[in-house]
Amino acid sequence: MDTRNRQKLVRKVSPVAPVGMAMPSWPQRVSFCVPGMVPDSNGECVSALCAARAHPLADQRQNTRMADYERRVLARFDDIVPTLKRISARQHEADFETQAQQIARERLGFALDETVLADAWVSALDMRKLYGASVLHTFLDLAREAGAQQDGNAEAAAMTRFFIECGFHEVDVSACADGRLKGLLQYILRLPQQAVRRHKSYAGTLFDIEQNVKQWTETELRRFREGVPTLPESGTRYLKIAVYHFSSSDPTHEGCAAHGSDDHRAAQAALDRLVAFGTAIENGFCCGASIATLLIGLDTDNDAIRVHVPDAQGGMSLECVIDNITLYQATAECAAPEALRQLGSVVDETARRYGRSAPETGMRRLIERLLANNLAQIDYVCTHHQGRYADIGHAERFISIGDGFEEVHLRNLAYFGHMYTVEEGAADMDVGINIFSRLNVARGLPIPVAIHYRYDSQVPGSRERTVARCRRVKAAIEARYPDLMRDGWLVFGMSAQAKQPGSDLETVADNDINAHGH
Amino acid sequence: MDTRNRQKLVRKVSPVAPVGMAMPSWPQRVSFCVPGMVPDSNGECVSALCAARAHPLADQRQNTRMADYERRVLARFDDIVPTLKRISARQHEADFETQAQQIARERLGFALDETVLADAWVSALDMRKLYGASVLHTFLDLAREAGAQQDGNAEAAAMTRFFIECGFHEVDVSACADGRLKGLLQYILRLPQQAVRRHKSYAGTLFDIEQNVKQWTETELRRFREGVPTLPESGTRYLKIAVYHFSSSDPTHEGCAAHGSDDHRAAQAALDRLVAFGTAIENGFCCGASIATLLIGLDTDNDAIRVHVPDAQGGMSLECVIDNITLYQATAECAAPEALRQLGSVVDETARRYGRSAPETGMRRLIERLLANNLAQIDYVCTHHQGRYADIGHAERFISIGDGFEEVHLRNLAYFGHMYTVEEGAADMDVGINIFSRLNVARGLPIPVAIHYRYDSQVPGSRERTVARCRRVKAAIEARYPDLMRDGWLVFGMSAQAKQPGSDLETVADNDINAHGH
Repeated sequence: MDTRNRQKLVRKVSPVAPVGMAMPSWPQRVSFCVPGMVPDSNGECVSALCAARAHPLADQRQNTRMADYERRVLARFDDIVPTLKRISARQHEADFETQAQQIARERLGFALDETVLADAWVSALDMRKLYGASVLHTFLDLAREAGAQQDGNAEAAAMTRFFIECGFHEVDVSACADGRLKGLLQYILRLPQQAVRRHKSYAGTLFDIEQNVKQWTETELRRFREGVPTLPESGTRYLKIAVYHFSSSDPTHEGCAAHGSDDHRAAQAALDRLVAFGTAIENGFCCGASIATLLIGLDTDNDAIRVHVPDAQGGMSLECVIDNITLYQATAECAAPEALRQLGSVVDETARRYGRSAPETGMRRLIERLLANNLAQIDYVCTHHQGRYADIGHAERFISIGDGFEEVHLRNLAYFGHMYTVEEGAADMDVGINIFSRLNVARGLPIPVAIHYRYDSQVPGSRERTVARCRRVKAAIEARYPDLMRDGWLVFGMSAQAKQPGSDLETVADNDINAHGH
Repeated sequence: MDTRNRQKLVRKVSPVAPVGMAMPSWPQRVSFCVPGMVPDSNGECVSALCAARAHPLADQRQNTRMADYERRVLARFDDIVPTLKRISARQHEADFETQAQQIARERLGFALDETVLADAWVSALDMRKLYGASVLHTFLDLAREAGAQQDGNAEAAAMTRFFIECGFHEVDVSACADGRLKGLLQYILRLPQQAVRRHKSYAGTLFDIEQNVKQWTETELRRFREGVPTLPESGTRYLKIAVYHFSSSDPTHEGCAAHGSDDHRAAQAALDRLVAFGTAIENGFCCGASIATLLIGLDTDNDAIRVHVPDAQGGMSLECVIDNITLYQATAECAAPEALRQLGSVVDETARRYGRSAPETGMRRLIERLLANNLAQIDYVCTHHQGRYADIGHAERFISIGDGFEEVHLRNLAYFGHMYTVEEGAADMDVGINIFSRLNVARGLPIPVAIHYRYDSQVPGSRERTVARCRRVKAAIEARYPDLMRDGWLVFGMSAQAKQPGSDLETVADNDINAHGH
């Protein structure tokens, strides 16, 4: 595996240089690549950070499978505009409705809203409504397909066991709402999402401390009452991971918008929240209550992470970090055993270099696992995305509001704002609307907004209250952006889903909000 | 005590029939009383439900003290309008500002807003602003005085011990937001509020089940981690009490507005929530998790309660109730030992009469205590309010939004809506605004709104987030009622307070909301 030449892999996804066609070796070719990118032996521009060959610790088969999935998913979204254009061109033909539905079913896999098609003769086809509904429909189809295929239970159980071996009975990840982090679990960290039950996103990674204390409380009570997942005397802890982000190729523009694209500020803000959460637990509960924390930075250009190494007491600094892109470069040309040896010493060496104590063994093991998983992702980006995403900026397809969908996690798929009310989540909502005003409205496309909440089917009335919440949040978004609403720039979809694993996604219809208020 | 004639007590608070002046005994006198009221031996109209003498189990000294307090508090609010009228009359005099401040300090105990006074010469004095600010200032002064005097810790500790003896390690009361229930703990049930840490109000007693599950979780974790207030193996339970209300003298108008003044609907809705909360705990947690529940109805005319007697399994019905006004009438003429005997048998007798099993001993003891406490309150209303409040309807002085004030609980003092966002609490807010549109705006007075939230001083940033919440909720209320805002009909006060007992009430100033967003 580690002897395979990257050229072949690159060629697969880069049809501009057909297989077998030798590139002329003129050196001027360099000038066609943007800074930071260099031509590979095929003349393709590839990030200068990428090694010439596949990383010895990356599972190429898995990467290929994941790349196929990503490509198929994005292709389904990319098909929407050309399909709707084709349909639009026929809107004045006699059997328009029949033709339109046939094209939609063939190309998109579903029928369009009949009323919109039927109304086309009066004025023009309401393309905004069709586009928005098609994006949301495509996503729901993908989520349902993914839900039906989910078979990662064994993998998730193994990961949960590994976390516990490391001393963590729950791993809770909060990241930024930015859509470029939407692949965080499945792609960037390669963690089965069922093993990370709590993963919520907030603009600027500014997670809600009061709510997190409540989540900690729930987890701890289950341990005390049920001994699940560990007994109270086991000495394991709740681990909170916060992930901030930055852009190595355009640091002052494509970093975290909530922190003015200043990665130092973004990192400090996330670290402050972690410390505050830890203090809240230590102060609010007796008997030595404490949590473990970990701060991770993410380069959204290439998915490489930066891990801030905790000392023996769990303290972290902004400086004492392992840059995984550096580890990638140092190990890509090695044989696997040597790469593993370097991986096994990087945590302690980094701590030593900064004059700090090394973290506990369990934390070190966890960090090593995260680094290894992320090496595979760096390799993935090098192989399948030239080492730097073509869309280093925002390219989300829709806004996801609420509890977030579990089924499909993919980079730049959605801007995800976790919120229960727009009143509290207004800042996150505004950031999302700003992004999409540039991405979509500026190009004549509306903003699809998927509102999704989960309910507890074991709690009487929970479903009805969740449905009411969907409608209430929708109404609040409509009220917040009256100008966008008036011109049809916001298109909504609503869904609810039981918390119990494997539950169906239920579409929520528009309705009189008051009828379901209580 | 039980030989004292009620006449004397009534005379004290009814100056229209001077002491010593015998009333002529013409029978027509009856016609001066409204239905349900009869003249007593002094010719005063008194509720026909009241006994002729003080109840043997009521502590008259305590009742007199409580009546004094109530009268003093209401007098301070009642002084506001005449004082402002006096000030208004002088607004065109030369030394108006000095005179106004002198009158305000003398009569109200505080100075008025200087800017409002200084601006009077331009147009007219902004009486709405002065009135609203004075109401809120008066309340804050009262709350601070009460906070400084609070010495009920021993009493609260004794009550907590009693609850635990009855088998309840936490007693959580949810009532309706209606201001007529604002004296529920201190007056109607005579429970020290420190012994009932959780008491939140919702329009129609429709308490939040999901949030209640979280509160239960917090309580249980503390028992498991700290053994406080009872050890997990003690067999005690969390008791949830829901209190609905009705009006015996005007049942179809002065009952619970949220349920169309239909007391059957109000009772059923509260019972449904209790059952749902119980089911949520039983289904959501293993190992026989369960709670105890108790449903209580309240006649807001005379503060008499109705207790729905649970059977041995905790089940309740709308029919199997003890009407405390009936018990009051049956026991008022008895000697204390006989009254106690009847009190001691009423629970079992009621269960038997409806063919149901009797509740557990602890629940029976608790119900007896609540009935006894409420007998004293019925006696209080008979003695100090002619057995039926003059203000059987709404007469609240302000709207209280948020976590509610702990310090001053008094009937019709405030309409209290517990909410974290207006988006979720809009129904409760609308009910409050409707009430005050009739109470205040129709009379030319603005609606004072006190926004109050508590924070945890042990959680970093909690205070700042709470201050931000005050301002966010204020902005949301302003946005919801633009017409009222435009004409100055809404006057706001904001305050924050640490959760830790004995903490100061801190006034929150208006400010740029965004500066404190995170």
